[in-house]
Amino acid sequence: MSQAVADRLVADQEDILERLKALLRLPSVSTDPAYAAGMQATREFLLQRLTELGLQKVQLLDGGGQPAVYGEWLGAPGKPTIVVYGHYDVQPPDPLEQWVTPPFEPAIRDGRLYARGASDVKGSTLIAVETIGAFLAVEGACPVNVKFFLEGEEETGSPSIRRIIETYRDLLSADAVLSADGGRASTTIPTLNTGSRGLCKLEVTLRSAQKDMHSGRYGGAVRNALHELARLVTTLHDEDGRILVHGFDSDATPLTNRDRADAAELAGDDSLFYGSVGATPHGDPAYAVRERVTLRPSIDVNGMWGGYTGAGSKTVIAAEAHAKITARLVPGQDADAARQKILDHLQAHCPAGVTLEFSPPGGNSPSSTLPDGHPLLVAAEAVVRQTLGRAPARARIGGTLPITGIFQEMLGIDTLMFGFAMPDEDVHAPNEFFRLSSLEEGLKAWPLLLSRLGDAGSEAFKPWRKQPTA
Amino acid sequence: MSQAVADRLVADQEDILERLKALLRLPSVSTDPAYAAGMQATREFLLQRLTELGLQKVQLLDGGGQPAVYGEWLGAPGKPTIVVYGHYDVQPPDPLEQWVTPPFEPAIRDGRLYARGASDVKGSTLIAVETIGAFLAVEGACPVNVKFFLEGEEETGSPSIRRIIETYRDLLSADAVLSADGGRASTTIPTLNTGSRGLCKLEVTLRSAQKDMHSGRYGGAVRNALHELARLVTTLHDEDGRILVHGFDSDATPLTNRDRADAAELAGDDSLFYGSVGATPHGDPAYAVRERVTLRPSIDVNGMWGGYTGAGSKTVIAAEAHAKITARLVPGQDADAARQKILDHLQAHCPAGVTLEFSPPGGNSPSSTLPDGHPLLVAAEAVVRQTLGRAPARARIGGTLPITGIFQEMLGIDTLMFGFAMPDEDVHAPNEFFRLSSLEEGLKAWPLLLSRLGDAGSEAFKPWRKQPTA
Repeated sequence: MSQAVADRLVADQEDILERLKALLRLPSVSTDPAYAAGMQATREFLLQRLTELGLQKVQLLDGGGQPAVYGEWLGAPGKPTIVVYGHYDVQPPDPLEQWVTPPFEPAIRDGRLYARGASDVKGSTLIAVETIGAFLAVEGACPVNVKFFLEGEEETGSPSIRRIIETYRDLLSADAVLSADGGRASTTIPTLNTGSRGLCKLEVTLRSAQKDMHSGRYGGAVRNALHELARLVTTLHDEDGRILVHGFDSDATPLTNRDRADAAELAGDDSLFYGSVGATPHGDPAYAVRERVTLRPSIDVNGMWGGYTGAGSKTVIAAEAHAKITARLVPGQDADAARQKILDHLQAHCPAGVTLEFSPPGGNSPSSTLPDGHPLLVAAEAVVRQTLGRAPARARIGGTLPITGIFQEMLGIDTLMFGFAMPDEDVHAPNEFFRLSSLEEGLKAWPLLLSRLGDAGSEAFKPWRKQPTA
Repeated sequence: MSQAVADRLVADQEDILERLKALLRLPSVSTDPAYAAGMQATREFLLQRLTELGLQKVQLLDGGGQPAVYGEWLGAPGKPTIVVYGHYDVQPPDPLEQWVTPPFEPAIRDGRLYARGASDVKGSTLIAVETIGAFLAVEGACPVNVKFFLEGEEETGSPSIRRIIETYRDLLSADAVLSADGGRASTTIPTLNTGSRGLCKLEVTLRSAQKDMHSGRYGGAVRNALHELARLVTTLHDEDGRILVHGFDSDATPLTNRDRADAAELAGDDSLFYGSVGATPHGDPAYAVRERVTLRPSIDVNGMWGGYTGAGSKTVIAAEAHAKITARLVPGQDADAARQKILDHLQAHCPAGVTLEFSPPGGNSPSSTLPDGHPLLVAAEAVVRQTLGRAPARARIGGTLPITGIFQEMLGIDTLMFGFAMPDEDVHAPNEFFRLSSLEEGLKAWPLLLSRLGDAGSEAFKPWRKQPTA
């Protein structure tokens, strides 16, 4: 049955492409109030399309920021209920002068559709929307129950998403999430994104005295807050870059042979990886570069400051120094516990006469991963085998997708990223594009995926659902 | 003969005090253009007084900033020629509301003369001026040749002093400098300032990549410029605060028993020293606290910054980090060589893949000291013995007096600081005061000092004079 739906979508591809171009003409830059009308028009476009396609309860979910677009179809009792996540907002188009064609005038060149938001993530979002529509049109029903959740502030860090989910928790209750965001990890190898690193944050203020001091009066006989901060920062890693925070990765799930084989298959050219930013190889030599940046935790000082930083010189001995620190976390690591371990480490290395204060208390994001045997993963791998002729390499994202952690925390459900963006499509940069071939691949794959999830039944998800923790 | 002069000065003390009060009423704040009229009036006051007293070539020496006031008396052939240094500018009076009586309305309470500039350094400057005047009035001659150099921008870092000396190098040619600035180190023990620490400066920019990186893409596999800077800064000292820069103090003149005995005599209460700034003891345990801050070199990072320092967090890995570093130097250490040793140390500890850039090239100040046997020191110690009944403890200033180094560099001559300010007189702060007893002590001591210098003859200074190096 899904084949008929896929055939219909492929047959309608030209219409869908026109619809995508219409969507891309609407400048939905969430961060800039100057684009408020574009945001509004984009919401209306989606509300109208979901209504046309036969979704119900089509509405905006407002949490005080940019509202999300919602629509549901719940006509498949006993089948899984899937939140289909996408986002309709885009990055600012600057620098405008570097675009070959204007960012909000979609243009096709060499099989690529150029426009702001084409890859991130209106293309993949529309694939999902049109797939549900085709099921309803061709079959009169979907293989699963669907709840669209199309966010309007992903590009600004989702400031109101927790309030939205809190407010509409019952409406959003589901068995799992399929995300149109989170694309493919390779342009040549079939991949599935099966997770992302988490994040914990802290800011430390170090004090070695109550007042800044004059080095002519105190130089040589007092602790300099900058020296002390430097000494603390230096205790975090050894010279190769291995983390020295006691027990920091003791809870991290060890890499499996499969993890390492997938990472090896997806490993790019390290010299290109480093060359593109003018950096040199570094990090724990027990792990390959791709493992270090996707499968292993990391700690970075993101900002450090204190003393006199203006022009010229000032012979001051700073009483206070500051550092902003974040850590990327992997499955097994609890974000709050990881933050506490860094804090305990710094405290333990802090000499007498020096005090530390930490902030902020929260804002952490858990890592996520789909474990072996998860019905989302089983279904998606089968689809990739079927459409691309081989099992996908599993990839985890080195960055953090807060939304995945938030769905896990607040709704107790896992997310599969099933977007069709590729890693070279200049997202967040001038001349963003989406491959037309990806549009077709997506329109073929999504019906298959929904069908397989429908085969599994709602019961299959029960063992994987957790109690919400927030 | 000097006794007659001292007697005359003491007899005229009330008049001199009135003259000092008149000088203190003139608001000569050099840093603030709003006080331009006060600066002008102060210069006129001094020009007029030097003229009245019988000085010659009374004039302003202009280097493009606040001009210096000059006047000479050269009627003692064969006798030493002494530049008498003072400054007529003062610190801003803010915060005004904390003054018990207004800063430019001199008021006497409990034997103290309260006014901005009373201690720093109009009181001691006027003692010098009046002493020369009394010699000319009483004796018709001075025991030495005198060249007044009364600076107008000491409180703003003497921005044009090198240009002034360059322009008037011949006019300022002399055997030595007597400075009315650089007061006493103790309120209870007779002291002589015999030197100050020097200063060298550098700023380092560290680069570990060409671009800032996203920790979601690079975290764990690249060098973070902030970690690298922290590691470098940490190599500068051991945990006790001993300097680890190779050979940094190898040229430093070792402390003599006399140095250490003087430092011990002048040692204050360490708990007050630390308590006043809320700091805790630190530094090379081989030296007492007073030794660490006056007789030993020190290195301090005065400012350090890089990465994201705004509100909230940003998961950036900085490609660049910065530190401003200064070192206090002691006799024996060449400022340029010291700077180079720090630079070499940092370079030697810089790992592959990290580059350092250094600036600025100059702006260093040499340390200064009057060695045993120097005629300035011999004369001054005899005067203190004579007037205060015991040999003074020798003190060196932990800070840097650029003027001393500049006279050494540009004129090849040494400076004796013979001011009468005491260390508790709230200079640069509200309610600055000068002790009336110090006025009397100064008026008694300066005639004795000039007489003794005159006994020595110009020849005595020849072995100590050096070729100017700038």
